[in-house]
Amino acid sequence: MSTPVPTPVPESMRAAVLIRAGEIELQQRPVPVPAADEVLVRVHAVGVCGSDVHFYHEGRLGDWVVAEPLVLGHESGGVIVAVGRDVSPARIGQRVSVEPQHPSPSSAETLRGDYHLDPEMRFYAVPGTDGAFQEYVTIQSHFAHAVPDSVSDNAAALLEPLSVAVAAGRKARFEVGARVLVTGAGPVGLAVAQVARAAGAAEVLVTDISPTRRAAAARFGATTVLDPIADAAAVAAAHVDSFVDASGAASAVRAGIESLRPAGRAVLVGMGLPEIALPITRIQNSELVITGVFRYANTWPTAIALAATGQVDLDGMVTGTFGLAEVQAALDSPADAATIKSVVEPMR
Amino acid sequence: MSTPVPTPVPESMRAAVLIRAGEIELQQRPVPVPAADEVLVRVHAVGVCGSDVHFYHEGRLGDWVVAEPLVLGHESGGVIVAVGRDVSPARIGQRVSVEPQHPSPSSAETLRGDYHLDPEMRFYAVPGTDGAFQEYVTIQSHFAHAVPDSVSDNAAALLEPLSVAVAAGRKARFEVGARVLVTGAGPVGLAVAQVARAAGAAEVLVTDISPTRRAAAARFGATTVLDPIADAAAVAAAHVDSFVDASGAASAVRAGIESLRPAGRAVLVGMGLPEIALPITRIQNSELVITGVFRYANTWPTAIALAATGQVDLDGMVTGTFGLAEVQAALDSPADAATIKSVVEPMR
Amino acid sequence: MSTPVPTPVPESMRAAVLIRAGEIELQQRPVPVPAADEVLVRVHAVGVCGSDVHFYHEGRLGDWVVAEPLVLGHESGGVIVAVGRDVSPARIGQRVSVEPQHPSPSSAETLRGDYHLDPEMRFYAVPGTDGAFQEYVTIQSHFAHAVPDSVSDNAAALLEPLSVAVAAGRKARFEVGARVLVTGAGPVGLAVAQVARAAGAAEVLVTDISPTRRAAAARFGATTVLDPIADAAAVAAAHVDSFVDASGAASAVRAGIESLRPAGRAVLVGMGLPEIALPITRIQNSELVITGVFRYANTWPTAIALAATGQVDLDGMVTGTFGLAEVQAALDSPADAATIKSVVEPMR
Amino acid sequence: MSTPVPTPVPESMRAAVLIRAGEIELQQRPVPVPAADEVLVRVHAVGVCGSDVHFYHEGRLGDWVVAEPLVLGHESGGVIVAVGRDVSPARIGQRVSVEPQHPSPSSAETLRGDYHLDPEMRFYAVPGTDGAFQEYVTIQSHFAHAVPDSVSDNAAALLEPLSVAVAAGRKARFEVGARVLVTGAGPVGLAVAQVARAAGAAEVLVTDISPTRRAAAARFGATTVLDPIADAAAVAAAHVDSFVDASGAASAVRAGIESLRPAGRAVLVGMGLPEIALPITRIQNSELVITGVFRYANTWPTAIALAATGQVDLDGMVTGTFGLAEVQAALDSPADAATIKSVVEPMR
Repeated sequence: MSTPVPTPVPESMRAAVLIRAGEIELQQRPVPVPAADEVLVRVHAVGVCGSDVHFYHEGRLGDWVVAEPLVLGHESGGVIVAVGRDVSPARIGQRVSVEPQHPSPSSAETLRGDYHLDPEMRFYAVPGTDGAFQEYVTIQSHFAHAVPDSVSDNAAALLEPLSVAVAAGRKARFEVGARVLVTGAGPVGLAVAQVARAAGAAEVLVTDISPTRRAAAARFGATTVLDPIADAAAVAAAHVDSFVDASGAASAVRAGIESLRPAGRAVLVGMGLPEIALPITRIQNSELVITGVFRYANTWPTAIALAATGQVDLDGMVTGTFGLAEVQAALDSPADAATIKSVVEPMR
Repeated sequence: MSTPVPTPVPESMRAAVLIRAGEIELQQRPVPVPAADEVLVRVHAVGVCGSDVHFYHEGRLGDWVVAEPLVLGHESGGVIVAVGRDVSPARIGQRVSVEPQHPSPSSAETLRGDYHLDPEMRFYAVPGTDGAFQEYVTIQSHFAHAVPDSVSDNAAALLEPLSVAVAAGRKARFEVGARVLVTGAGPVGLAVAQVARAAGAAEVLVTDISPTRRAAAARFGATTVLDPIADAAAVAAAHVDSFVDASGAASAVRAGIESLRPAGRAVLVGMGLPEIALPITRIQNSELVITGVFRYANTWPTAIALAATGQVDLDGMVTGTFGLAEVQAALDSPADAATIKSVVEPMR
Repeated sequence: MSTPVPTPVPESMRAAVLIRAGEIELQQRPVPVPAADEVLVRVHAVGVCGSDVHFYHEGRLGDWVVAEPLVLGHESGGVIVAVGRDVSPARIGQRVSVEPQHPSPSSAETLRGDYHLDPEMRFYAVPGTDGAFQEYVTIQSHFAHAVPDSVSDNAAALLEPLSVAVAAGRKARFEVGARVLVTGAGPVGLAVAQVARAAGAAEVLVTDISPTRRAAAARFGATTVLDPIADAAAVAAAHVDSFVDASGAASAVRAGIESLRPAGRAVLVGMGLPEIALPITRIQNSELVITGVFRYANTWPTAIALAATGQVDLDGMVTGTFGLAEVQAALDSPADAATIKSVVEPMR
Repeated sequence: MSTPVPTPVPESMRAAVLIRAGEIELQQRPVPVPAADEVLVRVHAVGVCGSDVHFYHEGRLGDWVVAEPLVLGHESGGVIVAVGRDVSPARIGQRVSVEPQHPSPSSAETLRGDYHLDPEMRFYAVPGTDGAFQEYVTIQSHFAHAVPDSVSDNAAALLEPLSVAVAAGRKARFEVGARVLVTGAGPVGLAVAQVARAAGAAEVLVTDISPTRRAAAARFGATTVLDPIADAAAVAAAHVDSFVDASGAASAVRAGIESLRPAGRAVLVGMGLPEIALPITRIQNSELVITGVFRYANTWPTAIALAATGQVDLDGMVTGTFGLAEVQAALDSPADAATIKSVVEPMR
């Protein structure tokens, strides 16, 4: 996996554009020009995220509505091929993972280290900002994180969902010897389970209604896999230190809260209903802590270390790859339970 | 307020006993005998808490059911009149505030400093353990906290609800310059507002549907009082650092969560419905933290300091006093909006 | 204290320049031009800091050496008179306090909220970057913090040392009911003592060898003042929750560490010897925490709230004012024990 | 390693008693009788700690002086053979690891979860309280921690030094992807390095002046081993997130502090000189945090999980075993660089 030799940057590129719900069109577009503090990245791999699938099928996600054509994809890696005026040309040729956000540098949130909560955030593949299902993207230089050769192109892309898992693990305060419950064994749940194990958790219980996904969990981090319905009593009695929901299902959230020890922590990552009825009396009587994860800040160095050392396996989670002309098929693929993570390779 | 001269301890005493929902009976009972690590306290003042009122009217509170006669009252102060075998007799004559809990010394929760979350807790006025609406009570010596003369008998009793407020303030992370919202201006809400001010909060917004209670809030800690209905827009836009609910009302909990800044903290103290529908998407997108308070641990030294220095005014919150024969009237008094805190004086 | 009417910005201005150790020269210099994200501030008040005095007398401070002419002064307030290309002109006319730092936006430290620890920091009045003993200064717009009319020009300048105190208080974890020791009753020590009181500390012990300064401490935050020599035994027995050194004296640092309760926290703010022998066995056996403060991050909103609400008195700490032609006298003034804080008013 | 069948408890037992510095005498003593909340443990294995060696050679350790005969040894495991009045007889026959402390249940420190900092602590093998170099010991029931069969007798004893490492790791805030420096590759240093790896640290640098010990470090947790003298520059440039000293050497402490990134944490575990000159200016300018570890609280569940799951290898650290008649030889053994941990087996 030697560093690719830089090739000339063309003037135009292919982009897979969401025109409206259900319709992706391959367009020829100008290659974007990096601003002074940005780099231009030739995209080698882009993971397909559940939010991409949601935008594709529904044309919206929560309050975001796709009113204009939008390029999806925010889990990407590639190689720097050009740099803005203020960036060292020595970066050209570096293999990088893209942290797909562009916060304001001066909001209260950014200044205190929560740059992901900046209210003026521009984020890949959210209406108003194109994503990475195209051949080239721009990103601020410091958010194009160099990766070592031990991190593949696919893994470079999947550092994004791993970053979500790292952020969840921080909020859940994973620690050595802990007992952890993860509900939902999709790619984020598997990444969370792996992070929990990497953090020294002694027991990592993972639930999913799908036997196929439970089997995947057993390979990616779980010490115990459970059926949320058949094993409901075992989940309720688990007395875990922390719980991360990666399903978005109200029943899973409630079961997870039930499973916590006094002063335990619940971290809600999965997106689902805007409201869920929560057991307030139990939260009070056991002084549980409930919080959520919205993306991540300062996670890439950690995620790179986890992937580079092999503490977390990202490549093994890739179950299918697609060309740029096949983005529609890629977006349909997660409907298959055997799919863990699909990856689009724009340059192939 | 000099230290009372110890008087001989009689063999029997009067106790106001809840026989069944709605019925209090004044009984003659043996004076309890302190165990080796306990003291005997002659009770001078006992605050009436909402949970007492609930037990009195309903004969139950959440999962607790009054199946046997029960003495209510858990906010108490008095003077030590006898000590157990392992306690220094020098304590006799000390004026004290009673921390009304008896945890196991060896549970995981106790050992890590969360003794209030001990699953084998015995707590005053919870079925199985009598409370303080009687002339004498026993308590472990270290939970009979000596108070200085600057803390009155009434204030000694009210260190208990102040402790709830101190615990809430710790979880809400009150700090200098902060913006805080408190929903509900009953005695706990007023104590929370005062603690917030004592902690240096620059703005303390208090909401209550009662104009009488809002007027009280303006005297006890609030910098701004708001009507939760008429001023709903102002509450929603408040962008506070932390929010403490002292109402138990679902609408207040939801309004408070709405008012938080990104990464803000909600602490639910008021008891109400066992379940409330919470805005999960908002909790996730703004990474809010939701938690609750179940009593307190390690709060008395702080509460004593706050009362002794005058940073918090407890005496001013007492709106009525009652004898032991009037406990039923005392338990009816909170129905009057002008009541902030009623106090029973068993020895008068 | 109405908002001053903006006046035309001249092309040149007066600046008090440190030529070499001990020599300040009043020079005519071009008014600086704000960069795209900066504002131009007409300086109304600049506090004299101990580090200014040190640079003036020694021509160096620690590893920093004054090799080129340098304008001192980093505690400043004034009014915005011009803005850079990316800043709203609506800011012109705002009264502001200047946070005198310019960190890189993309260092690991900045991104995690510790922007003050950015290794490429440019800071006012440190060799390489001119300070505020001149009529006009530039600063990034978000570091020109708007102040309300309740904050005077002098107080706007002194929000800088107050920010140091706020940063120290966070590291010391000041909280309601706490016992705090502050060693050194210079302006920073007095600000720390005031912040401790504002945060609800029940006892704030302040030591200083100067009776004049102890008298000042009694007016600014101390509940008890002590002579570090005569009262050494009382200090050693103080059993405080946290200790802040604002003296830089090795003896004070050691006495403060001695005074801590188990698990107590020491925060070293005062600059003195580069090395001090510390009682390691005591730090270990009592699991004390020792840390230091190097400036501040995210403190201005807190400091503004403290000054605007009157929780902290900054104006009362000003004991002398000087014109720009009198900077040398201003820098000599702290040698007088009666001086708490001298302020230079460049525009008078 | 099936549970041993309980055998009758004799009336007397052998104990290896430190009579004076350098002299251990094997005595016949009465078997101790467990108090109401205690159990009697037949001791199967006792690790030799550096503090035992120090007491043996010097007759003192810091402020503790051996004025009366004292049984050393505080790292012990065995099987419960009798219980006090308030303990379930069902515990008889359980294999356990002994947490060798007996704090007061009611000190401020104990109540807030820092029971190891209780000022009235009685601790094994500290003058006033006999240790475990004898056939039977008593301990409060909740400090006799049951261990699964996957934890050997030797490992049960060595959960004590592992607990020190767990406590250090908590204070150092080990986390996934972190860079950690450990100075000193004795048994505690090796345990700390293993805990760091178990917690997901990506890089664990271990220094020791002994090549033999560096070789051990490479087997027990280190990703890189360094010679503190030859590799001093590499250590200084390591830019680690946290540093744990397990050497007690002033030079190591100073080198470790030098190696920290801004806001990094130093945890001092090794016992050495009572005072060390520390680089205060560096601590301030980089806002480093310096603290120490004095034993542990609430670590056994974590340590048991780490040993039971194989995340930490304790058995591999045992380099020699001794009978009770050989305690003197056991106490001399650490002088040999090839020794990692010697274990005394009182019942063999």
